[in-house]
Amino acid sequence: MSERTLCVIGLGLIGGSLLRAAEGAGWKVRGMARSAAVVTAVRDAGFDATTTIEEALADDDALVALAVPLPAVVDVLPMVARHAPYCRLTDVVSVKQPVAAAVARLVPAARYVGGHPMAGTSASGWAAGSATLFTGASWVVGSDDGADPVVWAQVAGLALECGAHVVPVGTADHDAAVARVSHLPHLLAAVLASVGAGGGSLAMALAAGSFTDGTRVAGSQPELVRAMCEGNRDALLAAVDDALGRLGAARGSLASTGGLAATIQAGHLARRAFDAARDTARDNTEHIDLTAPDALARLRELGNHGARVVAVHDTCCHLELTT
Amino acid sequence: MSERTLCVIGLGLIGGSLLRAAEGAGWKVRGMARSAAVVTAVRDAGFDATTTIEEALADDDALVALAVPLPAVVDVLPMVARHAPYCRLTDVVSVKQPVAAAVARLVPAARYVGGHPMAGTSASGWAAGSATLFTGASWVVGSDDGADPVVWAQVAGLALECGAHVVPVGTADHDAAVARVSHLPHLLAAVLASVGAGGGSLAMALAAGSFTDGTRVAGSQPELVRAMCEGNRDALLAAVDDALGRLGAARGSLASTGGLAATIQAGHLARRAFDAARDTARDNTEHIDLTAPDALARLRELGNHGARVVAVHDTCCHLELTT
Repeated sequence: MSERTLCVIGLGLIGGSLLRAAEGAGWKVRGMARSAAVVTAVRDAGFDATTTIEEALADDDALVALAVPLPAVVDVLPMVARHAPYCRLTDVVSVKQPVAAAVARLVPAARYVGGHPMAGTSASGWAAGSATLFTGASWVVGSDDGADPVVWAQVAGLALECGAHVVPVGTADHDAAVARVSHLPHLLAAVLASVGAGGGSLAMALAAGSFTDGTRVAGSQPELVRAMCEGNRDALLAAVDDALGRLGAARGSLASTGGLAATIQAGHLARRAFDAARDTARDNTEHIDLTAPDALARLRELGNHGARVVAVHDTCCHLELTT
Repeated sequence: MSERTLCVIGLGLIGGSLLRAAEGAGWKVRGMARSAAVVTAVRDAGFDATTTIEEALADDDALVALAVPLPAVVDVLPMVARHAPYCRLTDVVSVKQPVAAAVARLVPAARYVGGHPMAGTSASGWAAGSATLFTGASWVVGSDDGADPVVWAQVAGLALECGAHVVPVGTADHDAAVARVSHLPHLLAAVLASVGAGGGSLAMALAAGSFTDGTRVAGSQPELVRAMCEGNRDALLAAVDDALGRLGAARGSLASTGGLAATIQAGHLARRAFDAARDTARDNTEHIDLTAPDALARLRELGNHGARVVAVHDTCCHLELTT
């Protein structure tokens, strides 16, 4: 058995895409799903898959990737602890602090480095997956102090081989950021969809691009949206309060002066800055020896400023910087 | 000069697209823009255009289409009153009650039937326009009591020839509906863009589809967004209050119970109903004689229930109904 074996637990949109992408990149892959129907579909597609974790983890030294919704993590980890207590472990769950805490509690000897590919569609399930889902996406790799440099390099390498670029992030910073740019958008999409529907058939007939785009992710499976939003409660509350404050200020301004200049202008500048950031050339590079004492702190610092890991060789990683 | 002459005042995204689409449908078209540079570009594209309304309205019996932002309507209408006080008049402005009120005040003898094509992009200006912008779009045609049936038929016919389907709507109902499905989405996009930017470079680096889609229209020209939102103040305030109430309830539930089930589920059902409504077969038809006394009331009633006008012959219009 080889270190280039990946065992994916959970074969929905993200796990199923990971299985496909990793195999395409030359990994030996094995998948596990509770549903026999899913396992049959995965096998029919030519992959090795099983319905039990015991079989999935048997006899090898695989990198284990948890790809189940957050609420299922605490159900799966005890089984990982039983069958592979010392495994190299990562995950693709959309909230990082609760997963890190659960791993520390339930599989304390695992060599865990969390991950989160920022990719998805409003569809879900194995059939919706694709080997190219991660192409061009950001893939967060947890970079808290204490992370094992060998596992960090392997998880980052997997993400790169799946076509993503790696953003090194501390778990708390990750959860605060995704509350603003992923979980709040899902909540606002739900609110907007309901307000629109309150306008009846006429409003639905007149809805065009702004409504369609603004509510797209409300089409996502509600259980998955709840799992990630509720699993990031504290950070999401802060983001919601920010949104409520801004929307309330806009309401007050519209009611009192009739004007929305401050709100609309600030949003426009923010969106333009976002577009510009995506187009910014990353023409500096930095190389970091992952075994150096301050390596993870430096990675987090660079990640917070928009740097990306674009290559990993052994335990040396190469970053592209925007500055 | 023929009744099939269209004079478009304002040659930005919508006006410029209307000029192109109408010419493609066989109308004789003439455009007017204040900017000499725009007029030159329009002429270079092979269209008849001028910088003065006097020239634009000279010597013919054109249908006049106002395609300027709402704040400019009150500047343009006095010139229309001077040069073509009895003209057939429509518009493509995104709010209907203020335009109708301004027309009644400033060009009282005009035969006015308002319009609003529900199409657009976050780009603006003549260069961003296209003859196919309206293909498949809803095009509101104002159907308040007193509308001239001949002009109504001509405006509806123009919309159909531009590739849209016509939704007959009263002005107050229009403004209430678009507050929910167009103006509120723009406001929420601005708020979301600002909250996301508040997360700094890391949040921007991690932003993916939900943020990109949810903030797309924040890229629109701020002056145009302000014009439509501020011009629909009362209806937008009601929509914002609905959104604030729902977001506040979600905040309370998340803080107190940790759950978001009600918000996420309601939004998901609303979005699914929206998707389903777009796919619903319209297999009933109804024909309405526009000169009948109750024609406009019946059109409004059908429009409120999702019916579309798909053909107009003389003053008889044919609707497709979802029921």
